[in-house]
Amino acid sequence: MNTAELVDLGQQLRVDSVRASAAAGSGHPTSSMSAADLMAVLLANHLRYDFDRPEHPGNDRFVLSKGHASPLLYSAYKAAGAIDDDELLGFRKLGSRLEGHPTPQRLPWVETATGSLGQGLPIGVGIALAGKRLDHADYRVWVLCGDSEMAEGSIWEAAETAGYEHLDNLILIVDVNRLGQRGPTRHGHDLDAYARRFRAFDWHTAEIDGHDVDAVDRAYGEAISTKGQPTAIIARTLKGKGVKESEDREGLHGKPLKHADEAIEELGGVRDIRVRVHEPPSVRSLHAVGNGSLELPRWDKGDEVATRDAYGQALAALGTARGDVVALDGEVGDSTRSELFHKEHPDRYFECYIAEQQMIATAVGFARRGWVPYASTFAAFLTRAYDFVRMASVSGSGINLNGSHAGVAIGQDGPSQMGLEDLAMMRAVHGSTVLYPSDANQAAKLVAEMAGLDGIRYLRTSRGQSPVIYGPDEEFPVGGSKVLRSSDADRLTIVAAGVTLHEALAAADALDGEGIAVRVIDLYSVKPADRATLRQAAQDTGCLLTVEDHREAGGLGDAVLEAFLDGRPVPRLVRLAVRTMPGSASPGEQLHAAGIDAESIAASARLLVEEAVVP
Amino acid sequence: MNTAELVDLGQQLRVDSVRASAAAGSGHPTSSMSAADLMAVLLANHLRYDFDRPEHPGNDRFVLSKGHASPLLYSAYKAAGAIDDDELLGFRKLGSRLEGHPTPQRLPWVETATGSLGQGLPIGVGIALAGKRLDHADYRVWVLCGDSEMAEGSIWEAAETAGYEHLDNLILIVDVNRLGQRGPTRHGHDLDAYARRFRAFDWHTAEIDGHDVDAVDRAYGEAISTKGQPTAIIARTLKGKGVKESEDREGLHGKPLKHADEAIEELGGVRDIRVRVHEPPSVRSLHAVGNGSLELPRWDKGDEVATRDAYGQALAALGTARGDVVALDGEVGDSTRSELFHKEHPDRYFECYIAEQQMIATAVGFARRGWVPYASTFAAFLTRAYDFVRMASVSGSGINLNGSHAGVAIGQDGPSQMGLEDLAMMRAVHGSTVLYPSDANQAAKLVAEMAGLDGIRYLRTSRGQSPVIYGPDEEFPVGGSKVLRSSDADRLTIVAAGVTLHEALAAADALDGEGIAVRVIDLYSVKPADRATLRQAAQDTGCLLTVEDHREAGGLGDAVLEAFLDGRPVPRLVRLAVRTMPGSASPGEQLHAAGIDAESIAASARLLVEEAVVP
Repeated sequence: MNTAELVDLGQQLRVDSVRASAAAGSGHPTSSMSAADLMAVLLANHLRYDFDRPEHPGNDRFVLSKGHASPLLYSAYKAAGAIDDDELLGFRKLGSRLEGHPTPQRLPWVETATGSLGQGLPIGVGIALAGKRLDHADYRVWVLCGDSEMAEGSIWEAAETAGYEHLDNLILIVDVNRLGQRGPTRHGHDLDAYARRFRAFDWHTAEIDGHDVDAVDRAYGEAISTKGQPTAIIARTLKGKGVKESEDREGLHGKPLKHADEAIEELGGVRDIRVRVHEPPSVRSLHAVGNGSLELPRWDKGDEVATRDAYGQALAALGTARGDVVALDGEVGDSTRSELFHKEHPDRYFECYIAEQQMIATAVGFARRGWVPYASTFAAFLTRAYDFVRMASVSGSGINLNGSHAGVAIGQDGPSQMGLEDLAMMRAVHGSTVLYPSDANQAAKLVAEMAGLDGIRYLRTSRGQSPVIYGPDEEFPVGGSKVLRSSDADRLTIVAAGVTLHEALAAADALDGEGIAVRVIDLYSVKPADRATLRQAAQDTGCLLTVEDHREAGGLGDAVLEAFLDGRPVPRLVRLAVRTMPGSASPGEQLHAAGIDAESIAASARLLVEEAVVP
Repeated sequence: MNTAELVDLGQQLRVDSVRASAAAGSGHPTSSMSAADLMAVLLANHLRYDFDRPEHPGNDRFVLSKGHASPLLYSAYKAAGAIDDDELLGFRKLGSRLEGHPTPQRLPWVETATGSLGQGLPIGVGIALAGKRLDHADYRVWVLCGDSEMAEGSIWEAAETAGYEHLDNLILIVDVNRLGQRGPTRHGHDLDAYARRFRAFDWHTAEIDGHDVDAVDRAYGEAISTKGQPTAIIARTLKGKGVKESEDREGLHGKPLKHADEAIEELGGVRDIRVRVHEPPSVRSLHAVGNGSLELPRWDKGDEVATRDAYGQALAALGTARGDVVALDGEVGDSTRSELFHKEHPDRYFECYIAEQQMIATAVGFARRGWVPYASTFAAFLTRAYDFVRMASVSGSGINLNGSHAGVAIGQDGPSQMGLEDLAMMRAVHGSTVLYPSDANQAAKLVAEMAGLDGIRYLRTSRGQSPVIYGPDEEFPVGGSKVLRSSDADRLTIVAAGVTLHEALAAADALDGEGIAVRVIDLYSVKPADRATLRQAAQDTGCLLTVEDHREAGGLGDAVLEAFLDGRPVPRLVRLAVRTMPGSASPGEQLHAAGIDAESIAASARLLVEEAVVP
């Protein structure tokens, strides 16, 4: 398109953004209007995309990091012929695909859910990294950010990663409209404030007037031809551009224009320009191919193995069988044991350094491109990326997460390194799966099984060694459990997983020596939990004792309770969990101090059984 | 101290780090050895600190962001005479104050718990900001970071804040020892890579040899005399410096030296140099003073008010009564209503922009200096800072957090903006308090009450208006509840809070019309929950129905269950919560779609009551 046509298209995008927001009675027209020219030039002259084939491997990828500017995105979809005007005007209504913030669950052209600021760029970096190092395809990744979100640290984690990885297939457009939600941003229209930061992170930068379509066009061309560096285009724009009532005015964030009809007239009225978007180039699909034969590591019963070791070995084996499996780590691969994957498959291993948010974002980007990512760090440090996990679930992203060094059982390193909230955090995520193995063979099987699930899959592993209690051919379906001690005389059921399972077994054996029979259930699948087995145990023994190396709220105990929350009679319940703030001590001392070791379990069990006798 | 003495002190700190780690059988001597000279010069020549009076308002503040280098910190404490050699050699043992990672809960000289990398600098920024804008004191804040943690986005959120706020009382020392946990860092010994990034964020920088004590001394002096900008001293060092076995060697992270005795000999043997640390200057205490008379806003029953509005008004009133109350917001003060505090008390309001991690870190820094911070953003976006909240709890920090826009009830904006995991996240934090008001008078009272609690206090507020149901003189003690419907004929108890309380009341009234009496409990104090009232209701009605605008895991329902987890008989339980992924829709449509509106509650109640009749 030529200058006049681009200007006209920009105005159409503004008009449609105003119309959609007015019809909805909510939305962000002013944040759309600032970026309309940036979007018009991209759509008409540079994006290579087949809207009929969003899965086309040669498609460029567009990420709207400032997700609240969704009216602009949907207006662009209309201009490209992907949606019609009726659908546009159904924006934000019940049942519409056009949500307040875009999600790929509902729209096939959306790469990732946005709306939590500072996430679009990191995920765009993940997609661009997949293009360079996994897909070996020439697609470009275009990310449109607002200026307010530049305050998020995640933007600079992403900037660091993209610069370091020489992602010249990544083009960031920063819509510097000077105004945040509440008022002026830190740097206003000081474009150099942003540009010099990106340059310091080894990016190429261009500073332009974001309403000069020729300047925008040239900047995009310059970005495309820049080699060895990502490009950040820092564009000076005006929020609410083109309408006197709204242009560069404070106090209008997230509000439909008061006088929409007049605004539309001022913008030149409703248009129906259709854009013929450039076709994507044809590309070869170059997914690595595995040998198809999964040979998981095997251990003999009685071997002493840490589940983190089993994780690393199983992940390496899975990578041999499947060419689509990739591993990421937050610079602790020697601790999580993901380094075992690195040794076998260096091309599919991604060192993310100590940047957990970017690690999850990279995993989400990889998953979007069809890869099966496993991202590992200490369970404690996954809390750093909780918002990214939450948003990945909004995206419907299928990613595997591993949190090692669970609980007080890590010992001397103290509470900063102990994952004690991870089960609560992951269980609360919609559609998640939460797994917590106690034994090496079990861990290995679960590593393989989680690859085939939907949504967020979380595997919790332990630092210390524990005895192998299952044979290598045993199966561990997600949603299942294992009953390890059982008799008709059971007077109580102990439910545990991971490190506390071994404590529970020791307690059961001690109690058995005293003539107290107890059932022991290994609830390795924390979510979904095996309700049938838990209900049977409740019926048979009347009382459940849960034991977990985790805070009392939101963990294994609550997972057990869920089996009884449909109005049925509930058994008596006692929960042992970590209720104090640990310091430094040996693993055994920690378990004892927290009251979750065999001795504590046996003591609680005795009390409960006595109570049952003398109510 | 002169050059020779400083060199000698550096060696002593190395020796003591090696000795402490050897005695513990774990720890990080090599990460301590790289920074030993940096620490020696600081302790002997620049730090102004009275170890006998850690609360002295004129004390400089030192934050060990690389918390794993705790042997160095404790060796410095010994050199300063704060601890003795016996205590040093008890490092990492059960009961010792000298934990694997330092915490202020156990040691009075530690400003904040570290060990989750990338947090020390943001919290140091918070303390420095308190020095500039609240304490008006001349103390300096010294932060020692590792190079690995420069990959964390939180470092750059902090850099942005410190540069923008002209924190020339902040001096960052980056110990560039080239090696992370697993291997080389991204930038190795490229000091300029770090320096140019900090300069881009408007810092003064100095690049030095971190083992040249004279260069270190000069750099500290230069930093102290730099005005208008924070200073970053980028120091080239060698991990494991001074011992051939360990110097600049990979694979030794987090491990005691194998040959400690030889290493000590190589370092010149055990010394007992005592440092006379500079006295802090005497300062006036300039805490703002309130009028001492708390006049909370008051509403009449039946008024329609959003709890977020009540939050903002109450916070402003609290700020008038108390001069130590400060407010922070993540650039959404017009939504959370913290802007009402800003209008009344601009000097005690901190716009943190869209940087939730730094906002929490600033609050932690303020709390450390004796202020009472209230930090607000959308409940959904507090997930961005979960690791900071978790670590604040390890620190024992007393901070108030407000999450607005809770649940699906926000309506059209969709899931990215909905706080649906916040109760689970906050309940899992050790020692936290979780409050969720349903009415303006209740919200106002809780805002005032939370100021006096220990630990992390979380208040969940709602976007939409709801009717005022409590009089302005009603009290709402933390740990309490309100029974709003009750009779001897109650056949069921509905437990709710916030927006669902109003739905529960509507359902109860509808059921009453059908001759079904139900009890309704307002569980505004989610943690701690009012166990006595819940137990009484269970005894009286036999069945509890919980309703929450939150995910099913970890929220209100689980809070209710905790009242029955001590082995007592448990009532029948049904939990209504948000089990789907919402899209865009009106608030009423959202509540209905999630099955947590009055109609859904009444339908569930009927079913349960019928079941009770015909089992």
